[in-house]
Amino acid sequence: MIIVMQSGTPTDQIQAVEERLAELGYQVNPIYGVEKTVIGAVGGMEHEKIDAIDSLRSYPGVEDVLLITKPYKFVSREYQKSKTTIDVRGVVIGGDEVVMMAGPCTVESREQLFTTAEAVSKAGARILRGGAYKPSTSPYSFQGMGEPGLALLKEAAEKYDMRVITEVMDPRKVELVSSYADILQIGTRNMQNYDLLKEVGQTKVPVMLKRGMSAKIEEWLLAAEYVMSGGNPNVMLCERGIRTFEPSVRNMLDLAAIPLLHKLTHLPVIVDPSQGTGRRDLVETMSVAAVAAGADGLIVEVHPNPDHAIKDGSQSQTIPQYEAMVTKLARVATAVDRRLA
Amino acid sequence: MIIVMQSGTPTDQIQAVEERLAELGYQVNPIYGVEKTVIGAVGGMEHEKIDAIDSLRSYPGVEDVLLITKPYKFVSREYQKSKTTIDVRGVVIGGDEVVMMAGPCTVESREQLFTTAEAVSKAGARILRGGAYKPSTSPYSFQGMGEPGLALLKEAAEKYDMRVITEVMDPRKVELVSSYADILQIGTRNMQNYDLLKEVGQTKVPVMLKRGMSAKIEEWLLAAEYVMSGGNPNVMLCERGIRTFEPSVRNMLDLAAIPLLHKLTHLPVIVDPSQGTGRRDLVETMSVAAVAAGADGLIVEVHPNPDHAIKDGSQSQTIPQYEAMVTKLARVATAVDRRLA
Amino acid sequence: MIIVMQSGTPTDQIQAVEERLAELGYQVNPIYGVEKTVIGAVGGMEHEKIDAIDSLRSYPGVEDVLLITKPYKFVSREYQKSKTTIDVRGVVIGGDEVVMMAGPCTVESREQLFTTAEAVSKAGARILRGGAYKPSTSPYSFQGMGEPGLALLKEAAEKYDMRVITEVMDPRKVELVSSYADILQIGTRNMQNYDLLKEVGQTKVPVMLKRGMSAKIEEWLLAAEYVMSGGNPNVMLCERGIRTFEPSVRNMLDLAAIPLLHKLTHLPVIVDPSQGTGRRDLVETMSVAAVAAGADGLIVEVHPNPDHAIKDGSQSQTIPQYEAMVTKLARVATAVDRRLA
Amino acid sequence: MIIVMQSGTPTDQIQAVEERLAELGYQVNPIYGVEKTVIGAVGGMEHEKIDAIDSLRSYPGVEDVLLITKPYKFVSREYQKSKTTIDVRGVVIGGDEVVMMAGPCTVESREQLFTTAEAVSKAGARILRGGAYKPSTSPYSFQGMGEPGLALLKEAAEKYDMRVITEVMDPRKVELVSSYADILQIGTRNMQNYDLLKEVGQTKVPVMLKRGMSAKIEEWLLAAEYVMSGGNPNVMLCERGIRTFEPSVRNMLDLAAIPLLHKLTHLPVIVDPSQGTGRRDLVETMSVAAVAAGADGLIVEVHPNPDHAIKDGSQSQTIPQYEAMVTKLARVATAVDRRLA
Repeated sequence: MIIVMQSGTPTDQIQAVEERLAELGYQVNPIYGVEKTVIGAVGGMEHEKIDAIDSLRSYPGVEDVLLITKPYKFVSREYQKSKTTIDVRGVVIGGDEVVMMAGPCTVESREQLFTTAEAVSKAGARILRGGAYKPSTSPYSFQGMGEPGLALLKEAAEKYDMRVITEVMDPRKVELVSSYADILQIGTRNMQNYDLLKEVGQTKVPVMLKRGMSAKIEEWLLAAEYVMSGGNPNVMLCERGIRTFEPSVRNMLDLAAIPLLHKLTHLPVIVDPSQGTGRRDLVETMSVAAVAAGADGLIVEVHPNPDHAIKDGSQSQTIPQYEAMVTKLARVATAVDRRLA
Repeated sequence: MIIVMQSGTPTDQIQAVEERLAELGYQVNPIYGVEKTVIGAVGGMEHEKIDAIDSLRSYPGVEDVLLITKPYKFVSREYQKSKTTIDVRGVVIGGDEVVMMAGPCTVESREQLFTTAEAVSKAGARILRGGAYKPSTSPYSFQGMGEPGLALLKEAAEKYDMRVITEVMDPRKVELVSSYADILQIGTRNMQNYDLLKEVGQTKVPVMLKRGMSAKIEEWLLAAEYVMSGGNPNVMLCERGIRTFEPSVRNMLDLAAIPLLHKLTHLPVIVDPSQGTGRRDLVETMSVAAVAAGADGLIVEVHPNPDHAIKDGSQSQTIPQYEAMVTKLARVATAVDRRLA
Repeated sequence: MIIVMQSGTPTDQIQAVEERLAELGYQVNPIYGVEKTVIGAVGGMEHEKIDAIDSLRSYPGVEDVLLITKPYKFVSREYQKSKTTIDVRGVVIGGDEVVMMAGPCTVESREQLFTTAEAVSKAGARILRGGAYKPSTSPYSFQGMGEPGLALLKEAAEKYDMRVITEVMDPRKVELVSSYADILQIGTRNMQNYDLLKEVGQTKVPVMLKRGMSAKIEEWLLAAEYVMSGGNPNVMLCERGIRTFEPSVRNMLDLAAIPLLHKLTHLPVIVDPSQGTGRRDLVETMSVAAVAAGADGLIVEVHPNPDHAIKDGSQSQTIPQYEAMVTKLARVATAVDRRLA
Repeated sequence: MIIVMQSGTPTDQIQAVEERLAELGYQVNPIYGVEKTVIGAVGGMEHEKIDAIDSLRSYPGVEDVLLITKPYKFVSREYQKSKTTIDVRGVVIGGDEVVMMAGPCTVESREQLFTTAEAVSKAGARILRGGAYKPSTSPYSFQGMGEPGLALLKEAAEKYDMRVITEVMDPRKVELVSSYADILQIGTRNMQNYDLLKEVGQTKVPVMLKRGMSAKIEEWLLAAEYVMSGGNPNVMLCERGIRTFEPSVRNMLDLAAIPLLHKLTHLPVIVDPSQGTGRRDLVETMSVAAVAAGADGLIVEVHPNPDHAIKDGSQSQTIPQYEAMVTKLARVATAVDRRLA
């Protein structure tokens, strides 16, 4: 950690900072420049002292406090050099295969779900997605089928040899949802719902943590650190677009996050091109680009009849569109030394 | 609602849309232009059909779907012309008085809390703020004292004739927190934690709903609609800064939201200049500006010794700073025909 | 165009709007709903009446004015269905080939430039990039070599059979720069420098228009419309990242802009992964992703010794890095039915 | 300056950085920590070596380069402690008076301009605003009257004892515009049009530099540094709102920029509530808030008949609205120890 003092700071204020640093267990190395004094503080586990460090910012004479180590530990590449692979009952996420997760935005009916599951499993999808509890911006939107939806997901997945991913929003429902799902999705609105993160951190169920709508990469990794430090190492991250000023897309997919995350963390990175654009006509191209950029998996909304979807029809692919896309994805995956199922 | 068809759309696609609109109970008024056809759909409660409307976007030939009514009801000025006032055991929020809420970011100890409470109550603060459950970006940050912190808040508030506002993050704790607090704060990270919103919507305890870090005004009002449509009319909104590209402040305080909200909704509007800037040296000026812009109250972080605060010391005012600020606020309040206690 | 009136608007205000629309040459179709009246206005060239339309927003009783046609003409796909190809003295941009533009950020010396040009031309680059006039955030940064830099660019390009792209910032220098360059680059800071756009619009020299740092797609296309409506049809667009809240990259590359632009406009789309990330370690992956997403070309910073580059060394690739990248790009290009030289 | 080395960096890479720093004239102070080595570099004028410093980022082993001094000089409070006052032929900007600048967005006709000028001068406005060269997003929008508009501005200002502010966009027109105007406005789209900044820097004519749509405070100050380092000390800054994700306002007015700028720079700060909101119904409240936050002046759009304004009618006040606002502004100015004319 480096503490930058304002120019002209009196000696006693500099000493006060030095004393506080010593109290906190740091070795103190001041550098007295012409314009400014800076104090190097060596020896700490900065992430464990983050509150005390923050309070230094308001000491008299302190201009800035610069951290030089990462604020997270378990999720970092320094902590674990090799990439994490998560085995979801035989489906491995984080390996050579780009794992396809597909299904409807929302479970609406047995027919809708089974038709979709059959089609996408034939096209190589390994994991069935579908919402039973839906986070809707409006209270007047459909809130999901609830537990009957979970049961349908499990049944459809079993029939077509798939695994289930579905969202959990309420810490009180983690146990229930886990009894049906293979992967718990934490949605973008709940990325910093810490009680929920702690709850899923106490299970061993694989967790897919979506990026908050305006989350910095570091905040996202700290959210993952909540889960991992709670004891659950089975975490994957999902880029789903961020909020910007551009009105022609619902979200702006940040594909540079993929290589960036691969440098910073050992956790697998999934991409959601459906939410990440909000437009069916962009899903294929952005899926292709995501695979080219190194995504470990994609999660895609597919609906047998999107025009009559209860929710998010405008960003769901039809079944033929999904099938056509998979062919293209396979070619690009090969070109970057990955493969599809 | 207006449906804009792409230029050159075949007649049967236009008819399909018209039929669907009729099914949904709309009166259909097509306008056949030279370049494009647009279809006016009259007669609906758009907010109640929001999912069906959204699915229209993906009908063949549809270019855009434009809503012309607001997607919320109970929170709107159309629904209730007169401004809501919330009586918190004798302290009225939303009236002529600009209500001051002050206290430490986090409850750290009896001494810290009582010293602060005594000082701010003498300076006219009506409501004591303080965190017992803290939403911290890092799992290694202090997570709050929990229930003992709540008990201290209640005791201090009683001693100095104040009311208590404190954050609740977990739906399982709403009942517990309500037994100590007069106002439940929903934090920025939980603005779209719908299970939590539904839970507080089932009480009658006043709720202060902070704006999400990157929430549009409309999404914020829809979150408030969750609480009100659940049966709890005692909602106030709190502007606390949004996320932008500017690194010199933690958040960017959106003061134009105050007059904008006063037009759109009858709910009181509070401003948090501490979180809203993240810098102690900006709190006074932005508080003055917020009052000038029509805020119904301010919520301010004050600490007897911010340099040793456990959390957020850098944005907390000292007691003398708070006292000096209140004098200035009173002058500006008078200049805009409001008053401080 | 649709004009939405506020609920409860008196008849005379509705009539005033209708009269104004008639004055402007529109056919007026009011729809009287239960809650609101909306007025459909048919028959106009909305983009030619943009100012008059804007003023309608402030008529008494008007709640919103919704445009239903695009505000640009020459750049739109409606105006020209087939994709534009630009022939830069034999190098075709906008065809099957993904055209590589490479070279140093800034022309520093003959040796630096010729070394780079030789290497990148061997690796298939068709167009030599290099700055002679540099838009630097700080007045104390190097401002470029000026005309001697232009002369070096031309000489190097001739020697290695390349074409030259370089930035012009000042309308007074358009003629001078055109005498050396094959493509005029308009930089991100000048996307809305309208006098400059008009000046290059009066030439026939190919123009590469970079997206403004926070430009909406529509504003970007309107900037291109300035050039095309001035008489210069040889315009290509360059996505170079937008400004967001994320601090770990200099800019956030918006790859979804590629398929989106291909839908809206016939102009070729180039991607700048160097500026678009600001990090050398992300350039290769984002280049691969850009080609997968349909880019018609890439413009990449390469330096023989980036550690001693005068400017932007941290985002420039070394020559071996560039060579390695091109091999990967070729594979991905093939996978999406494109090719590299 | 502080250079942070990656953990595990070999000694020779550390030495290479130390040698480069010594070459650049720095005194080198390495601190060898357990995890990382950091190198303190003391003694430089960092802003003069900004390019060399930037290139250090790409040295092998370098993780980050942290500047500890400001990148600008003449505009900083360190350079000049006392606030700059600019005397515009007797009208002082930056003193106790909050200077009002008012007038139409665009000069449309003699009658429109003189009516407005008469009214706003009676209401205390000192400076007449009006556009003769207009930066319009669309090429089909009105581009301004040009020189005849300038002549009208000068004539109206003389008649009503006002000064003239008007925008210059083209470096070739600086001399012409200066012959009519007392203050040259650099618009938001040209904040980083460096050739224009250099051109106005070579005059002594007062310059009002508007903030770029997505400019960081530091970039804005560096743009002002271009003007001041060119020799023109008469610079004022104008906050006019930034671009965000919120659709209900055209721009988001950043009032915290006012106190922040007053700390960082000695230059006067003006606020534009018309552009800064894009909504006439928010102008009054945001003007009041801006004065409360310490603005040295306001620039406001006023039109005798905004419903028929050629441009930006929706954000222009009527004359009675302006007059009513001034009364309120005067009260708030008094409350913060300022005054209006």
